[in-house]
Amino acid sequence: MKTKSRFLRAPVEPFVVLPDAAAGDLLARMERISFQGRNLAIARRIWEKMLGDDCTIFFGMAGALSAGGLRMIVAYLIAHRYIDCLVSTGANLYHDLHETRGRHHYLGSPREDDAALQAEHIDRVYDTYAREDEFCDNDEWIAAFALTLEPRPHTSREFIYKLGEYLWKATGQEGILTAAYKANVPIFCPAIADSSIGMGLSQARHREPTAGQIDVIGDIVESANLVIRHPRTASVVLGGGTPKNFINQASVQAEFFDDRIGGHRYALQIVTDVPHFGGASGSSLEEARSWGKLATDAEQVTVQSDATIALPLLVSALAGSARDTMARRKPMQFDVSGPTMAANGRPFPHARFEARQR
Amino acid sequence: MKTKSRFLRAPVEPFVVLPDAAAGDLLARMERISFQGRNLAIARRIWEKMLGDDCTIFFGMAGALSAGGLRMIVAYLIAHRYIDCLVSTGANLYHDLHETRGRHHYLGSPREDDAALQAEHIDRVYDTYAREDEFCDNDEWIAAFALTLEPRPHTSREFIYKLGEYLWKATGQEGILTAAYKANVPIFCPAIADSSIGMGLSQARHREPTAGQIDVIGDIVESANLVIRHPRTASVVLGGGTPKNFINQASVQAEFFDDRIGGHRYALQIVTDVPHFGGASGSSLEEARSWGKLATDAEQVTVQSDATIALPLLVSALAGSARDTMARRKPMQFDVSGPTMAANGRPFPHARFEARQR
Amino acid sequence: MKTKSRFLRAPVEPFVVLPDAAAGDLLARMERISFQGRNLAIARRIWEKMLGDDCTIFFGMAGALSAGGLRMIVAYLIAHRYIDCLVSTGANLYHDLHETRGRHHYLGSPREDDAALQAEHIDRVYDTYAREDEFCDNDEWIAAFALTLEPRPHTSREFIYKLGEYLWKATGQEGILTAAYKANVPIFCPAIADSSIGMGLSQARHREPTAGQIDVIGDIVESANLVIRHPRTASVVLGGGTPKNFINQASVQAEFFDDRIGGHRYALQIVTDVPHFGGASGSSLEEARSWGKLATDAEQVTVQSDATIALPLLVSALAGSARDTMARRKPMQFDVSGPTMAANGRPFPHARFEARQR
Amino acid sequence: MKTKSRFLRAPVEPFVVLPDAAAGDLLARMERISFQGRNLAIARRIWEKMLGDDCTIFFGMAGALSAGGLRMIVAYLIAHRYIDCLVSTGANLYHDLHETRGRHHYLGSPREDDAALQAEHIDRVYDTYAREDEFCDNDEWIAAFALTLEPRPHTSREFIYKLGEYLWKATGQEGILTAAYKANVPIFCPAIADSSIGMGLSQARHREPTAGQIDVIGDIVESANLVIRHPRTASVVLGGGTPKNFINQASVQAEFFDDRIGGHRYALQIVTDVPHFGGASGSSLEEARSWGKLATDAEQVTVQSDATIALPLLVSALAGSARDTMARRKPMQFDVSGPTMAANGRPFPHARFEARQR
Repeated sequence: MKTKSRFLRAPVEPFVVLPDAAAGDLLARMERISFQGRNLAIARRIWEKMLGDDCTIFFGMAGALSAGGLRMIVAYLIAHRYIDCLVSTGANLYHDLHETRGRHHYLGSPREDDAALQAEHIDRVYDTYAREDEFCDNDEWIAAFALTLEPRPHTSREFIYKLGEYLWKATGQEGILTAAYKANVPIFCPAIADSSIGMGLSQARHREPTAGQIDVIGDIVESANLVIRHPRTASVVLGGGTPKNFINQASVQAEFFDDRIGGHRYALQIVTDVPHFGGASGSSLEEARSWGKLATDAEQVTVQSDATIALPLLVSALAGSARDTMARRKPMQFDVSGPTMAANGRPFPHARFEARQR
Repeated sequence: MKTKSRFLRAPVEPFVVLPDAAAGDLLARMERISFQGRNLAIARRIWEKMLGDDCTIFFGMAGALSAGGLRMIVAYLIAHRYIDCLVSTGANLYHDLHETRGRHHYLGSPREDDAALQAEHIDRVYDTYAREDEFCDNDEWIAAFALTLEPRPHTSREFIYKLGEYLWKATGQEGILTAAYKANVPIFCPAIADSSIGMGLSQARHREPTAGQIDVIGDIVESANLVIRHPRTASVVLGGGTPKNFINQASVQAEFFDDRIGGHRYALQIVTDVPHFGGASGSSLEEARSWGKLATDAEQVTVQSDATIALPLLVSALAGSARDTMARRKPMQFDVSGPTMAANGRPFPHARFEARQR
Repeated sequence: MKTKSRFLRAPVEPFVVLPDAAAGDLLARMERISFQGRNLAIARRIWEKMLGDDCTIFFGMAGALSAGGLRMIVAYLIAHRYIDCLVSTGANLYHDLHETRGRHHYLGSPREDDAALQAEHIDRVYDTYAREDEFCDNDEWIAAFALTLEPRPHTSREFIYKLGEYLWKATGQEGILTAAYKANVPIFCPAIADSSIGMGLSQARHREPTAGQIDVIGDIVESANLVIRHPRTASVVLGGGTPKNFINQASVQAEFFDDRIGGHRYALQIVTDVPHFGGASGSSLEEARSWGKLATDAEQVTVQSDATIALPLLVSALAGSARDTMARRKPMQFDVSGPTMAANGRPFPHARFEARQR
Repeated sequence: MKTKSRFLRAPVEPFVVLPDAAAGDLLARMERISFQGRNLAIARRIWEKMLGDDCTIFFGMAGALSAGGLRMIVAYLIAHRYIDCLVSTGANLYHDLHETRGRHHYLGSPREDDAALQAEHIDRVYDTYAREDEFCDNDEWIAAFALTLEPRPHTSREFIYKLGEYLWKATGQEGILTAAYKANVPIFCPAIADSSIGMGLSQARHREPTAGQIDVIGDIVESANLVIRHPRTASVVLGGGTPKNFINQASVQAEFFDDRIGGHRYALQIVTDVPHFGGASGSSLEEARSWGKLATDAEQVTVQSDATIALPLLVSALAGSARDTMARRKPMQFDVSGPTMAANGRPFPHARFEARQR
C-alpha cells in the first residue's frame, strides 16, 4: 500500500506540551505543525538566514504597534542591529515619542462608551486609551523642535534623525526614535503628512511659513540608493500600509537605475489583511515576485497573525537562537545626520540616483 | 494638566525582549500590552480561574487542528484534566485516530498543483497532506469496529468512548480518543454525520442494515444533564462550528429545565472568524450573554488568532503556572462507558432531562 | 513596445454608472472589473451553466441567513427549482419555521447592552433580535410535532419533509420548509442535534423515550445515493460549516462505491472565511480538487462576500437572465415523503449504497 | 405572551426575489434585512442625507480600486459633485492616469505562476495584470511633466491639479484626474512618496535637483482650512490607509484651531479590515467619536464588503434616487489651480491655519 510520493516527505509532528517551555523551543517544535503556527516558526528561520547573510534588512511597521506595547521590541531590533533600516507610519513614531517623553498609553476596553471618552478628552485605539491634552502638548513640542531646524527641506530620514537626537537630549530615555539616533539607523516615514508628527510640523508652519519642509521625494531617492549601494536586501514587515509598499518601491526604483537589482532575497511579513480584495496591505509575497519586488528564488513567508501575539514570541526566540550569528554580523554603518546620507563612510550622491551606466 | 480619569488606571507597559524567555513569562508580560496579545495573556488568567473554581470545563474544537499538529495538546488537556468534557467535529477525532493508528499527515504547501495531488490520491488541508488510501482504510476500520457493537442506538458520547477503547486496545498509542478513554472524559460529536467517522458508520450500515445507529438527540439530553448536575460551567473554544454552539446549547437547554442555570461562569474563545457577518462561529461572547449562554457577570475573553499559534503558547504557559491549582483541583469523575452516563458515581436519568420542579 | 503576451488578453473595463441599472446589467458589467465584484459576476454565469446542463444542484446554507432576511430567496430557489437539494444548518430551518409560524426577527443593533437584552429575554444575532419566549414556544411546537411521528428512526431528510408538511398544513405560509415540502425537494440537516430543532426533538424524548430518533447515518447513505443515481452534480454554497462539507462528502462517499463519480462539475461558494487557518469553512475550491470533491476541470468561483449583499443581487440577476434556460430545465422529480426516497419514480435501495460492481 | 419591548420595533422583512430588479429597489428592500446587506442599504440613505444637507463631502479611496475597474465611478462622483474633495493613495491616481493615457489593466488570475509573469515583465495585482514597460513609460511621462513645473514646492493638491490639466490636454479622455481638473475638485495625496507618481517625481529630481518638490505639510494646512471654512463635513471612505486617516486628521487639526469644529456629521465607510488588531484601516466609527473625528451624534455606517461589489450597486442606486436632491445641491466652488486655494471665491490664507481667536 505504501508507494512513495514526492509530496509526502516530512510528517506533521504533533506539538507536545512542555510546561513553561522557552520561546526558542516553542518555535522549534512549531516548525513541524501546520497553518500559521508553522509559518511563524519558519519566520524565525528566515530571519536568522537574513542575519547570517550579507543583507541590508528593511523593517516596515504599520498599525498602532507602538501604542500597543511593541515599541521596545523595535528599539531592541534597532539597537542590536537585527534590522538596518526602519520604514514606519508617523503614528508609530509619534506614539513612541509620547512614551519616551514619559507619558503613557493606557489599558482600556474596546466596548467603552466613546461619547464618555470624548467628554473626558480621551482618545481610543481599539482597547487602548491616551489623553488628548498630552497629544496636543506633543504636537506643540514637535512644532517647537521643527522651528529649531534650518528653514530648508529635510527628507523624512534626516528630520527623524534630528527628532531622535533632540528627544534623546531632552529625555535620555530609550525608545524607537532614540535607539535609531544612537545606532545611526535610518528611519523613513513616507506618509509623515498623514500623522500627528505631520500635524506638529504644520503647526510650525503656522507660526513660521518657511518651517516644516519635508522632502518626501528625496526619501525615494535615498531609499533606492540604499538598495543600489548594496543590492542584497531583505524585508521584514508588520502589517501593510505605506511601510510595506515603500520598502518594495525602493527595490523597484533601484532596479530602474541598476539592472543588477533583483528584488529582496528574503521576505517575511506578519499581516492580518488578505490578498483577495486587491489591496497592497494584504498582497501576497508571490504577487511581489511578478513585480520584481522579491527575487523569484527568495525565501519568504507570510504569517497571518496579529503582531502583538507573533512578534513577542518571534523576537524572544530569535534573540536566543541568533546569538552566534549576531556576533559575526557586520551591519552597514550609516551616517544619517545630515542632508546627505553615507554608508560605510561613502556618501550617497545628493538628489540623484546612484545609477550605473545602462 | 494631570487630572485623574476613571478610564486611565493602568498604563500599557511595552514588552521588553528577554532572549529565549519562557512561555509563562512571555504571557505575563503580554498582559500589559494591547490588542490580541493582551487577550491571549488574559486567556491564561481566565483558564487558571476556571481551574481554581469548582467548574465543569467544556472544551470545543473545530477546524482541522488535529491534522494541523495540536492533537497531543488536547490529549494533554484531557489526561491532566485541564478540561472535563470535549465537544469536537468528527474531523478532529478522525485525524486523531489516523495518527494514533500510526499513519501521518504531511507538511505540504498551500500552493501545490491540486490536480497533481489528485492524480496521486493525496488529499490537501491547506498546507497539510494525507494519503487517500490510508483514509479509505481508516473508514473500513471504523466500519469494522461499528459492526462489533450491539445493534442499538448509541449516543455519539457512548460510541466515541467505545471507539477510544477499541483504538487503545489495538494500538496502545496516545492521542485524543485514547486519552479520553483512559481518563473517562466524555466526548460529544454532534455533527458526526458530517465527517469521515460518519462515513465509516455508513459503510457499516451498508453491510448490516441495523449497524451505525447514532442517537444524536440523546447527546443533547446528556450534555444538558451534565450542566444540570453541576450548574457551574466554563467554556474554552477553539474555532466555532458545531462544538462552540453545542456547548452553549447545553447551557440553554439545561436552563429550560432548571432555572438555577445561568450560563457559563467563564468563557474563552480562540477564533479567526468575526461577528459582523452574523454567523455563530464568529459570534461575540457579549452576544452570548443576551441568550443566557454566558452569565452576565462571566469573565470572558475572545482571542482573535489562529489556534496553531495561540494554543501552543497558551497551554505551555498554563501548564507551568497552574501547577499548584491543578494539584488542588478535584474534577468530576465520570463513567461514560455505557448507555447511561454517571458523574461521581450517580447515574444520569435515562433519556430524560434531570429536571427540577418548576 | 507592444509585444503580445498570452497573459494579456482581455482588458479591465471600468464600470460606468447608469442610474438605477437593473441587477442583470450590473453583473454583466461587473464581469470586466476585478476582485470580488468580478467573482460575483462569474458566479451568475456559472450558475446559469449549471441550470443549462443536466446537473443535480446541491445548495448549502450556513450562518444565520434565515434570521437575516434571506429565507424567501431560498424558498424561491426551491420553488422554481434553481436548486435540487438543500443542505442546511438546523438554525436556518428553525428561523424559517419561526417566521412561517408568523413570528418575527427584529432589526437591532450590534452594540446594544446585552445584559439589558437578557433582562428582557431577547436573543441577539449580531444586529438582529428575537423573543426568547417565542423560541421556547417553537421548541415545544416541534416537540409536539415529533410526538405525532411513528416511534422509529427518521433520516433528517424524512423528518424535515414531514415537518414542512405539518407546518404547511398549520400555516399555509411560504418559506423554506413549506416550499421544499410542496416541491418535494430534499433537505438534509446533518447537524440537526446542534440546533433548536434538535432541542425540540430532545424535549419530545423527555416526554416519550422512543421519540426523537434521527438517523443521521442514513442521511449519508441517501445523499451519496443521490450522487450515484445521477453523477453529474453541482454545488452552490453560502458560508461553510456542515452544509459545505456534507455536500462534498456526498460526492466523496459516492465515489467510494462508484468510480464513475468524479466530483462536482460546477461549484460556487459565497464565503467570508479564508483558507489560511486550515478550517473547512474557508477551504478553497482548489483544495477540494485534491480530494476529488470537485472535478479537476470543474468551473468554479469563490466570492468573498457577506451573502446578505451578494445573494440578493445574484439571484435577482439570475432570475432575469436564466428565464429561457429555466423554461428548458427538467429537474429530477423526487419523492421524499417516506423512509425510502425516490428519484424520477425509482426508489433508492434502503439502507445501503447503490453501488456498482467494483 | 406578547409584551412590548423597546428593542423590538421593526421586524426583519425577508428579501423577495423580483427578477432583474433595479439597483434602487434592491437597496430599498435590503434595508429591512440584516448584517452587511442592511448596512449597504443604510449607506445609500446616509449618503443621500449628506447630499441634502449643506456638507463638504470628503471621499477617501485606498486599495487598488482604479486598476480594479472603479475609476469611472469615482470620476462620475466628482463630475456630478456627489463628493467635494478626494483623498487618494498615489496608486489609485497613477492607475487612473495609466488608463486615461490609453493603456489597460488586464483580467488575470490570482493563481498564475508569478515567475512566468515576471519573465514577461507583467505586474500582478491579485487577479489583474499590467505591462511593466507601460508603467515605466508612465513614470517617465510624469517625470517629464514634473520638469515643466516651476521649481518650487507644490502641495500634492496643486501638483495633482496641474497633472490633471496636463493629462486632459494631452488626451482629452475621462478619468479621475481629468474629471477633478474639469470640476475644480481638490485631490489630496498625502502619501504621494509611496507611489509610482512619487517615483516619477524622483526621476524628475534625478535629472534636475530642484524638481519634484512636494509640500505635504502644506496639504495638512489646506485640508484643515477646508474644514474650518465650512465646519459641516461628511466622510465617505473606501478601504482605510492614508485617505481614511487624512480625512479624519483634517477635522482634528481644524478643531485645534477652531473649537466650533465638532467632527464629521455623517460618515460611511466600506471596508474589509476589522477593528480588533488595532490598525487605523479597520478602526470603527465608534472609536472615531472618542477622538472627535466624528460628531457624537453623527449618522454613520460601516459596510464590511469589498468595494468592487458594494460601490457599483451603491452608486447605481444613489444616482437614481438622489436625482432631486442633486438638482438642489449647491456644492462649494473651488479654485485649486494655484499655490493658494480658494473656496467660493475667497482664498485661503497662505501657509497658515485660518484660525479663530481662542
